[in-house]
Amino acid sequence: MTSLPSQDVLLHAMQDIVGANGCLVADADTESFVTDYRRIYRGKSPLVVMPSSTEQVSRVMAWCYAHDVPVVPQGGNTSLMGGAVPDDSGTAVVVSLKKMNRVLDVDTVNDTMTVEAGVTLSAARATADENGRLFPLRIGSEGSCQIGGNLSTNAGGTAVLRYGNMRDLVLGIEVVLPDGRVFSSLKGLRKDNTGYDLKHLFVGAEGTLGIITGAVLKLMPQPRATAVAFVAVQSPAAAVQLLGQARALSGGAVTAFELISAPALDLVLEYLGNAPSPLPARHDWMVLIELTSGADEDSLNATLMEILETGLGNGWVVDAAVASSLADIQQFWRIREEISDAQTRTGGSIKCDISVPVSRIAQFIEKASADVLALEPATRMVIYGHMGDGNVHFNPLRPRDRDAKSFLAQWYKPVSDLVDGLAHAENGSISAEHGIGVAKRDDLRQYKSQVELELMWQVKRALDPKNLLNPGRVLPQIDGAAAS
Amino acid sequence: MTSLPSQDVLLHAMQDIVGANGCLVADADTESFVTDYRRIYRGKSPLVVMPSSTEQVSRVMAWCYAHDVPVVPQGGNTSLMGGAVPDDSGTAVVVSLKKMNRVLDVDTVNDTMTVEAGVTLSAARATADENGRLFPLRIGSEGSCQIGGNLSTNAGGTAVLRYGNMRDLVLGIEVVLPDGRVFSSLKGLRKDNTGYDLKHLFVGAEGTLGIITGAVLKLMPQPRATAVAFVAVQSPAAAVQLLGQARALSGGAVTAFELISAPALDLVLEYLGNAPSPLPARHDWMVLIELTSGADEDSLNATLMEILETGLGNGWVVDAAVASSLADIQQFWRIREEISDAQTRTGGSIKCDISVPVSRIAQFIEKASADVLALEPATRMVIYGHMGDGNVHFNPLRPRDRDAKSFLAQWYKPVSDLVDGLAHAENGSISAEHGIGVAKRDDLRQYKSQVELELMWQVKRALDPKNLLNPGRVLPQIDGAAAS
Repeated sequence: MTSLPSQDVLLHAMQDIVGANGCLVADADTESFVTDYRRIYRGKSPLVVMPSSTEQVSRVMAWCYAHDVPVVPQGGNTSLMGGAVPDDSGTAVVVSLKKMNRVLDVDTVNDTMTVEAGVTLSAARATADENGRLFPLRIGSEGSCQIGGNLSTNAGGTAVLRYGNMRDLVLGIEVVLPDGRVFSSLKGLRKDNTGYDLKHLFVGAEGTLGIITGAVLKLMPQPRATAVAFVAVQSPAAAVQLLGQARALSGGAVTAFELISAPALDLVLEYLGNAPSPLPARHDWMVLIELTSGADEDSLNATLMEILETGLGNGWVVDAAVASSLADIQQFWRIREEISDAQTRTGGSIKCDISVPVSRIAQFIEKASADVLALEPATRMVIYGHMGDGNVHFNPLRPRDRDAKSFLAQWYKPVSDLVDGLAHAENGSISAEHGIGVAKRDDLRQYKSQVELELMWQVKRALDPKNLLNPGRVLPQIDGAAAS
Repeated sequence: MTSLPSQDVLLHAMQDIVGANGCLVADADTESFVTDYRRIYRGKSPLVVMPSSTEQVSRVMAWCYAHDVPVVPQGGNTSLMGGAVPDDSGTAVVVSLKKMNRVLDVDTVNDTMTVEAGVTLSAARATADENGRLFPLRIGSEGSCQIGGNLSTNAGGTAVLRYGNMRDLVLGIEVVLPDGRVFSSLKGLRKDNTGYDLKHLFVGAEGTLGIITGAVLKLMPQPRATAVAFVAVQSPAAAVQLLGQARALSGGAVTAFELISAPALDLVLEYLGNAPSPLPARHDWMVLIELTSGADEDSLNATLMEILETGLGNGWVVDAAVASSLADIQQFWRIREEISDAQTRTGGSIKCDISVPVSRIAQFIEKASADVLALEPATRMVIYGHMGDGNVHFNPLRPRDRDAKSFLAQWYKPVSDLVDGLAHAENGSISAEHGIGVAKRDDLRQYKSQVELELMWQVKRALDPKNLLNPGRVLPQIDGAAAS
């Protein structure tokens, strides 16, 4: 291995490519690029480079490859897993895509939009909207997160039940490879069986195989009608029954089916200044159901009522508030969406982002809750999320009278190990939508088979033989000849 | 390279693993495994091996890997591209999955079904149906083709517009790697972001990276209502407008939108014994539209009528027959589905399976038709297929008075080159759903970038360093250091 170039040599080389305005060196300027937004992961970097074209990214990568300089790609830096910030070795250049924020094309006949990787999710959604279309990805960080990061982490959110994950919303991709070669396939095709579908290698790879610089995204028809209800259910098992009924009766109109536990609702209502609950009484479990369709409002509301009446008749539904205005819809959704911030503000939350088959979710919640409460009985069981995908955010919260730091110091590891283990035992996932980054990297040794880890390394070494791209992220070190 | 084992050694080793009943040696027995079903590709093989478990597949592969014996995986042997039969070197063992035909699990709450790779598509569809669910893949060869082959070729068909390709219908996969290791990930999760999503490597790889032995497939709610119309449209451009309107008005209920040209209709009606057309007059262009939904029949029919009336009002629709019974629906679909057999029976068909962005399909058809007719004016322009996906089967057919053999000898290559070139120029695909196999392998040199071909080889070499799995398929030989 050659020795790394000096800071001066590196800076000059990068300035030659991206210009002086494209390089940040001073600590004050780089601080926000080397620290994750929850301020848990803080790394070091000699330089933040902000290319403004694919060609510049290619030249940056080629130079770094030739000089053995590690590179950390960064979008909106909203990873919850430390996947987008450098480690503290101080060797890795951060390549930020923020200047590549142009929408290149909108094709309303093909229902596609071509964007650079640095376009924020909210800008992509706004562009779709301006063109009378829907770009359906819906996650809390949409104002900051970028399409390249959404792709690299295969982002999920609250509309996956209807529209799929980010992987399902992309048709074509452009990627700069570790050695600077550009794989450009910005095609807007629904069908293309001409060899390996390489884009799927880079989607969800968290920037370890290449830097995504552009994408062709799918657009959807805008729904003509939306119907939303805030529903108290008898139990998580009843919620699953209701979900099945809703899917059967609505023919695919269920866009969201979000579970909310009583402690989650208590927390968020308090956070929202003691906002009123949509329902008069307190219930242990609720779901937020959203139907959308191209049909008229009346017909969709009738379907929603049919679902709720079936639920009441079967004893699954205890009470329900149906949104009667856009303001109601926004208020119901605000309650759901602010749970995350309410937790952050409160502190002392053990975040487990698990998924299991939908058929196992109720018993998973029951067992995991009982086990956590057996450890620490006053824990607030903040459980919420995308039940329709088998994915809940299972986030035990410190007791009211316990300080966050001591609670996390005592319980973070044992509780998350317990929850992850139970999810794994149900043939589930220990990271449904948040990814691996550095936070869960070493857990993979426990939850992935040796063969799967070997395969990941075989792919990594084939594409990034020098291990320069986002090193130390996603892939745990393993033994075994095939990976050496 | 070691020399290949003798036929005797090979046979004994395989019999040790799969038993005498699992091996076919006599030419009469192996004939149907070494010849593709259109009898265009005829190869040789010393042995057809039919394992009955993943463990047997693993042992077969480990032995062949250790002894440098090439392996050709085979499902229902319905490839149109010669992708499932061995070459004529006589060195490759055919591994048929036909004995692995068990449905392992159906989970109607999770809406998934776990199957072995040798389950036929029609058996998978029937199993879903028996459980009150829909498995939506719909292709002509469903009685013969197998789930493993559907996955390996990322099969498409007539319901992709609504439900996606086979890639979109699989959640988990089990694969035996070239060296016999088993990558087993038979999980039924909608969300799982724990490292590289390796299943996408094997889907669409046409058996060149591993042998798929099992899969977890998505199930859908059965539609409660179906509405179908056979519609004469003013032109392909008018059909595209109608499609956009149908998608906007129906909120995702458009399940199929199939274009049919007049020569395609003439051909199939004649093939069906001069069956009557659904429409009284002859028209240049027609579309078969199918809507399905969970809503009631009346509401869906009203939506269909709204679409057709909008189409009439805008001059896109010239005439329409709306199916008023299940018999009508079946008859309309029979016309569409028998076009393929009608061509085979007639002979002299130049099959081009192209896709372009939906916004380019009308002008593609116009230009390609004009160019073909300029070469041979009496050619029958049989054009049909999945317009909603931008995918048409563009299959110029010999003039009535011309024999098939001389027509194909003169025109197959120039016409398919012309059509593929025009599709490529529209940022399209030269193989939308049929794959590459050996038939289009060398065309990839022309239509893929050097970087993309290098990446394919990097992946191939990482997973199959000895190039033993389905050798000579999909990947063309290329120059360049990165691929060597």
